[in-house]
Amino acid sequence: MAECDRRSFLGATGAAAAILAAGGRATGRAVAAVPEASGRTWRVDGARLARRLKDLSRLGANPQGGVSRVAFSPADVEGRAFVAEMMRAAGLQVRIDAVGNILGRRPGLRAEAAPIVFGSHIDSVPEGGNYDGDVGSMSAIEVAEVLRENGYRNRSPLEVAIWCDEESGLTGSRGFVGDLGAEELGRPARDGLPLAENIRRIGGDPARLAEARHEKGTVAAYLELHIEQGGTLDAAGIPIGVVEGIVGIHHYEVVVRGFANHAGTTPMDRRQDALLAASEIVLAVNRIVRSVPGRQVGTVGRLAVRPGAPNVIPGEVAFTVELRDLRTETIESLWSRIEGEARAIAERQGCTMEYLLRPPDQPALTDARMRDLIAGVADDLGLRHLNLPSGAGHDAQELARIAPMGMIFIPSVGGISHSPKEYSRPEDVANGANVLLQAVLRLDQGALK
Amino acid sequence: MAECDRRSFLGATGAAAAILAAGGRATGRAVAAVPEASGRTWRVDGARLARRLKDLSRLGANPQGGVSRVAFSPADVEGRAFVAEMMRAAGLQVRIDAVGNILGRRPGLRAEAAPIVFGSHIDSVPEGGNYDGDVGSMSAIEVAEVLRENGYRNRSPLEVAIWCDEESGLTGSRGFVGDLGAEELGRPARDGLPLAENIRRIGGDPARLAEARHEKGTVAAYLELHIEQGGTLDAAGIPIGVVEGIVGIHHYEVVVRGFANHAGTTPMDRRQDALLAASEIVLAVNRIVRSVPGRQVGTVGRLAVRPGAPNVIPGEVAFTVELRDLRTETIESLWSRIEGEARAIAERQGCTMEYLLRPPDQPALTDARMRDLIAGVADDLGLRHLNLPSGAGHDAQELARIAPMGMIFIPSVGGISHSPKEYSRPEDVANGANVLLQAVLRLDQGALK
Repeated sequence: MAECDRRSFLGATGAAAAILAAGGRATGRAVAAVPEASGRTWRVDGARLARRLKDLSRLGANPQGGVSRVAFSPADVEGRAFVAEMMRAAGLQVRIDAVGNILGRRPGLRAEAAPIVFGSHIDSVPEGGNYDGDVGSMSAIEVAEVLRENGYRNRSPLEVAIWCDEESGLTGSRGFVGDLGAEELGRPARDGLPLAENIRRIGGDPARLAEARHEKGTVAAYLELHIEQGGTLDAAGIPIGVVEGIVGIHHYEVVVRGFANHAGTTPMDRRQDALLAASEIVLAVNRIVRSVPGRQVGTVGRLAVRPGAPNVIPGEVAFTVELRDLRTETIESLWSRIEGEARAIAERQGCTMEYLLRPPDQPALTDARMRDLIAGVADDLGLRHLNLPSGAGHDAQELARIAPMGMIFIPSVGGISHSPKEYSRPEDVANGANVLLQAVLRLDQGALK
Repeated sequence: MAECDRRSFLGATGAAAAILAAGGRATGRAVAAVPEASGRTWRVDGARLARRLKDLSRLGANPQGGVSRVAFSPADVEGRAFVAEMMRAAGLQVRIDAVGNILGRRPGLRAEAAPIVFGSHIDSVPEGGNYDGDVGSMSAIEVAEVLRENGYRNRSPLEVAIWCDEESGLTGSRGFVGDLGAEELGRPARDGLPLAENIRRIGGDPARLAEARHEKGTVAAYLELHIEQGGTLDAAGIPIGVVEGIVGIHHYEVVVRGFANHAGTTPMDRRQDALLAASEIVLAVNRIVRSVPGRQVGTVGRLAVRPGAPNVIPGEVAFTVELRDLRTETIESLWSRIEGEARAIAERQGCTMEYLLRPPDQPALTDARMRDLIAGVADDLGLRHLNLPSGAGHDAQELARIAPMGMIFIPSVGGISHSPKEYSRPEDVANGANVLLQAVLRLDQGALK
């Protein structure tokens, strides 16, 4: 079905071709005809948006009340078809790129101009919720719907992007910016199938990855609306978050080695208990990360004890330390303190400590003009806003490599995410979509110039 | 082969029958003929003992230099045949009881008297060492060998016991004292086969378990020589340990529940991190156990973190707390403090804490007269000795239910056990075997009277 989509786009006929043709003819000459501030009073249809979010949540619904719409699963394929149809109905020209992203274009009066891209993803983690990705996706389509209803004649091409496979590694957006290596295509996805086969199954063409690639400057701007996934906005009672950037992530694999011995016969003062050392280190990570001002976070999320028997003193403990912040220097400075303390702790417990830093995710800052734009729109809509980092990774961080990038957050109730309990209020979703709508309009009307 | 052993004993002929008959005839009358202190100058052959330990270590040898002679495995079956043959050569009448224990009897002048039993086990943990169980087993046979060589005419029957399946739950000794429930027979052993089938395979008869059972008073005394498995004797440079008792074991299963959430988006001050709570509790267990004088031990040996992903705040941590001491009251008092602190820690971290106490192993104290006997023998042999608890479980704890029980420890170098690195020096093995020899002689000569 997705393959059909791409073919039908490539050979676009009827209404779609007419729009394309209109866009093509208008190049250059029609610009002056666009009113500078048209659409300032337009608003999204919050009820329609809420209904569509609900409709989407039925595809891959899990018994806990969330969705399990893991990329490339039957639920994801079904969700993609549903979304593509909705995009067509919103007047977009839909195609699947070589990576498997669903791209819906609203051609602009300046047909050759770099497009303004906005969107999100509809794949979920296993046992995920109904808002992560879905809010940004449904809102982007709602924006296109409002533009269609109002007969807006955009200057730049507008492109709604539904990125494929966000949750397991930003596959679609990385392919879009040319960062998906050919060597990754053979690796098995969650379902055990090679990524290439999965991409083919959703209508992509892994043999032509290069065609999906966008160089710097070929996208005018990228905007993404997303739920915060943290509890900052909800706790503060503020409806709009202006994202400062997407944090960098350092993931350290630490191993503490002591000496496994009989838990009954080894006196307390003659032990080299790797778990005692690891426990002290876990607490030190928390203490050190919290010891400096800022919004950095540090987590020990995985920890395995060997041999792991009730009657054997732990001989080895392997665990992860994950540090996130907008500034790589902050992360490095925290790790330097953690490492120093961890070594001293290990030594005091008669243990050794080793670690490995996995290839870090670099921080991706949003564009200052995009932040100002979002803040200005929120002000004009009477919505209070707060600057904050994104602690989670997003497709936007990849787009930041090739274009000015901005992100809008709305509150996640209780800060819960990646859970069926994930929830954002319909009014907050509508507010976020209105900010997205107005920001897209202003970008099209030259906000970055 | 084991079945054959039992039949050949039941229909004993030749030399064995002659010894039996001699024992039978001597009842009552011959007692006065035994010199009160015969054998005081007899010593074991340390070189032979070391050689036999080495020979035994070849059966089930593992690449790390220890043995993997897990009960009921082919290596165990081979080891048992080897040991049974050695026992026969030492003049013992060998039979397999219904549980699968190898019992080698040296009939006494008082044929009807309760036997003096001594021995140990030859099964090992997976990837175990060459001394745990083996030292006591080879030494017991060496004692019988010395008695045979010197033509000792024992009053009471002497019985060398090689208990089956010590390591996975004292199966043989529990069967011997009547504590092996019929319901256990259907449970799978390490190899997945039901215990009954395993017992049958080594020559036992699970249908006749009751015949293996010994009531209180039917054994005159039980003695076991064993490696310490801890490092107390080695660190003190003392060759003989007089065991005060085998510690009781309380095994608690603790679960700490917090709230799993996104490690990137959840601020540090809004977390309910179950691993932070568990880490504090692990440290509290250690601190509290060490806060009172004594030789009690406490260990967190197994700990599992859920969901266990680097980017998810731990929502649940399950772990074991194992407490051991000779006094149940000490264990209970320690746990009461640990539980109180653990609850406070969990609450402070926004978590809950629950626990379950598994059916405890009660402490088994050695008989004061047996301790005096062992200490006296060691003094006479010029061997320094130290009273100490056994932190590990032993077959002796089961025998303590039906007879005065004593245990002799020799040093484990570095306190290492249940490891291929387990080692006891040949001179220490010989010293221990000499204490066993002299203690058996004195028991036979009325030491407990």
